[in-house]
Amino acid sequence: MCDHYIRAVIAYDGADFLGFQWQSAGRTVQGVLEAALAQVTQATTRVVGAGRTDAGVHAQGQVIAFHTAWRHPLPALQRALNAVLPADVAVMQLGLAELDWHPRFSAIRRYYRYTVLNQPLRSPLERRYAHLVTEPLDLGALQAAAEIVVGQHDFASFGQPTQGDSTVRCVYDARWLREESRLFFDVVGNAFLRGMVRSLVGTMLQVGSGFWPVERMSAVLAARDRAQAAPPAPACGLCLMQVEYEEARQM
Amino acid sequence: MCDHYIRAVIAYDGADFLGFQWQSAGRTVQGVLEAALAQVTQATTRVVGAGRTDAGVHAQGQVIAFHTAWRHPLPALQRALNAVLPADVAVMQLGLAELDWHPRFSAIRRYYRYTVLNQPLRSPLERRYAHLVTEPLDLGALQAAAEIVVGQHDFASFGQPTQGDSTVRCVYDARWLREESRLFFDVVGNAFLRGMVRSLVGTMLQVGSGFWPVERMSAVLAARDRAQAAPPAPACGLCLMQVEYEEARQM
Repeated sequence: MCDHYIRAVIAYDGADFLGFQWQSAGRTVQGVLEAALAQVTQATTRVVGAGRTDAGVHAQGQVIAFHTAWRHPLPALQRALNAVLPADVAVMQLGLAELDWHPRFSAIRRYYRYTVLNQPLRSPLERRYAHLVTEPLDLGALQAAAEIVVGQHDFASFGQPTQGDSTVRCVYDARWLREESRLFFDVVGNAFLRGMVRSLVGTMLQVGSGFWPVERMSAVLAARDRAQAAPPAPACGLCLMQVEYEEARQM
Repeated sequence: MCDHYIRAVIAYDGADFLGFQWQSAGRTVQGVLEAALAQVTQATTRVVGAGRTDAGVHAQGQVIAFHTAWRHPLPALQRALNAVLPADVAVMQLGLAELDWHPRFSAIRRYYRYTVLNQPLRSPLERRYAHLVTEPLDLGALQAAAEIVVGQHDFASFGQPTQGDSTVRCVYDARWLREESRLFFDVVGNAFLRGMVRSLVGTMLQVGSGFWPVERMSAVLAARDRAQAAPPAPACGLCLMQVEYEEARQM
């Protein structure tokens, strides 16, 4: 029996999930994917993901891996999974992976987007995918705060490691964009601490709304103390956009 | 006791409503608005809407009217309503109306947008607000079909009147736009029959996907027979964007 090692790109609406990672009780993306694989392949299948997104966090480009004895063409596996998966999860790409590849350990870059709706009134049609900030935000101040975190830093003020002890991470790019009343924070790093993007956004929003001077962003970063950062921004605004690998293995 | 006649612009996510209009059982936008008004003003209040959107149809610019004895400033009424309304409905504007104004009968133009997601795979993050079409769509064919319905026509093939017998309506503008994998159908008319926009879109999609020649759009329009039109496109893609009144009363 031939065993295939599969990599796939997954998109999901995180609103109705307790997060990516399997839990003994409650709906998780991993649980839903493993149930779909069990149904389609008639075999218990364990899924590994590139990033363990928290409850409520969305994904356009989560990457997963699993082993399967599927004996039909791979496009048929993708179609079968999409046919049985619930509406809030979909397999966007699927293919064979090399055996020394790992969705988390082989990843060299992660790209997250955080969406803020900046207007005085809440918007029923955007509430699921954007965080509403009713105070005016200064794009220049947000951008100045973002530039402080670019580079290799100890981000202990902004999150906890999911594995190992190190809280040092490298942020390659961090920038804010405005499109009418929407503000996007796009951040690319080698890896992120648990809760780090939402914590960074929460602290930057204090700067952007004028409550904190931009210097406080540097002070929070330097403090290496969770208590110095502002409360994290809500999960609904966050989306894992893309996970990148060495060129030959790009998803 | 001073009675105010109020006009307001309402936005809602239609997914969890049985439509705008009050029903004896089930959640409707009108029902939710009237419950919020009763809570805030401590008086039974009847709401009249500009358009009776169907179950699942969204609105960015529904217009409503109601009478109230509210004795505080009007911005406080808007804030109070937004504080008690559920997350999927919001009051975007609110002000005094003239007594001879009526949200439906005074309306001179309605603008609807229908959103199609045109890609081979479903998208968990867009499923609530766009209709997925997996076959390639030809923008030129869609546009040619749209142009056929511009002008004053008997639209009996595409819907039923909500009031009176006439199925003649005037479409001022109808056009398709593409933004990456999203297609928008923007249509402005003096008024629309019940189900008309979704029925027009359903038939245009037959033309856009190449199943029907564009001439069939003219034939369906001329037939004045519901059975000639294609099935209506699903409600999730439709949004009432704006209702327009004579200039002095613009919302």
